Amino acid sequence: MADIILHQFYGSSASLRVRIALNLKGIAHGQVAWNLKKKEQKSEEYLKMNPQGFVPAIEREGKPILSQSLAIIEWLEETYPEPALLPKDIDERARVRAIAYAIACDTTPLLAGRIMRTLEVDLGADHDAQTKWFRMWVNDCFSALETQMNSNPATGKFCHGDTPTMGDLCIAAQVVSNERFGVDLAPYPTISRIFDNCMALQAFEKALPKNQPDAV
Amino acid sequence: MADIILHQFYGSSASLRVRIALNLKGIAHGQVAWNLKKKEQKSEEYLKMNPQGFVPAIEREGKPILSQSLAIIEWLEETYPEPALLPKDIDERARVRAIAYAIACDTTPLLAGRIMRTLEVDLGADHDAQTKWFRMWVNDCFSALETQMNSNPATGKFCHGDTPTMGDLCIAAQVVSNERFGVDLAPYPTISRIFDNCMALQAFEKALPKNQPDAV
Repeated sequence: MADIILHQFYGSSASLRVRIALNLKGIAHGQVAWNLKKKEQKSEEYLKMNPQGFVPAIEREGKPILSQSLAIIEWLEETYPEPALLPKDIDERARVRAIAYAIACDTTPLLAGRIMRTLEVDLGADHDAQTKWFRMWVNDCFSALETQMNSNPATGKFCHGDTPTMGDLCIAAQVVSNERFGVDLAPYPTISRIFDNCMALQAFEKALPKNQPDAV
Repeated sequence: MADIILHQFYGSSASLRVRIALNLKGIAHGQVAWNLKKKEQKSEEYLKMNPQGFVPAIEREGKPILSQSLAIIEWLEETYPEPALLPKDIDERARVRAIAYAIACDTTPLLAGRIMRTLEVDLGADHDAQTKWFRMWVNDCFSALETQMNSNPATGKFCHGDTPTMGDLCIAAQVVSNERFGVDLAPYPTISRIFDNCMALQAFEKALPKNQPDAV
């Protein structure tokens, strides 16, 4: 058994962030799939491990479960510092975290399966209304990030400098997730460029949903 | 002019988290209010500072603006390490961050003013439907956190040990925000106890919405 087991779902944006982080840091790990479409993350077995019923989670022999993708990524960063996913400088770390949280707090959670289902079932949102909802929040976020990044000399090949950081993990995972509802990236040349630079790296490519064993 | 200016709104949950952190660390600061009810955070003047158009943000003379409440709190923690808002141990830090993110990523953003307005205007959600939405996501989160915390010996007077951490800032801010739609805390004795312990501290009490100069 590997020292680290990643519990995940191929199509989950938060799982994708962690898969990229593990790949970038070159951390050998096992992988267990929980099919969100079959609500396996709400099974008794999974909830015993992670009461929130969300993927991803990290299991380690005889140690507490780690949950929440960003908490896992901070833990990976503190446990396996190289290559770094956060800059050393305190102000720069704040910039990268703010980019990550603009996506991981203010955007991706609004678009989760549980939210889209509630919009449909409780509020009668049809496919068009769901599409509008999805695109609106992504566009709100990406417009702001585009402005923040394209005018800032700290932006490089990636959102901060020329190596990928926690911010890029979140950007890449959101762009991949956009495929569900088709968000036009034309207004976001900086985000598009960063995404292309991410996808040129094997760590990102290998982490894509389609390249997971549980992909259907 | 103070070295640190907090741009905030008295009723914002994310602003409350940062006000508590500043108070706990005893950091002198100025405070500027932007009235979210008048959409002042979307004014040209504010957007020039923070293109995301969200509060809080921190302004410092000649240095970049800091945005995103959790990025600000991590920055405060790295800049003013005492008293610590994160444990020293890497596993324990991950636990605290996971508690914080369960609220700050997966819950609070679903309940923001912009979301509630969109539910009402685009999807015709009346007050009852909005109440159901609000309570559902808070209850989902609090049920899981209650299970995670009440069975874990790491939980103390606060969510992790006997001094407040980043997790408690998020718990307290969410409980305060619950007043908007009335969430029953009876099923959550651990969360209720932690909230009471938070509110017994002047740093939390002073940070409450009603105690801000911009409160109406």
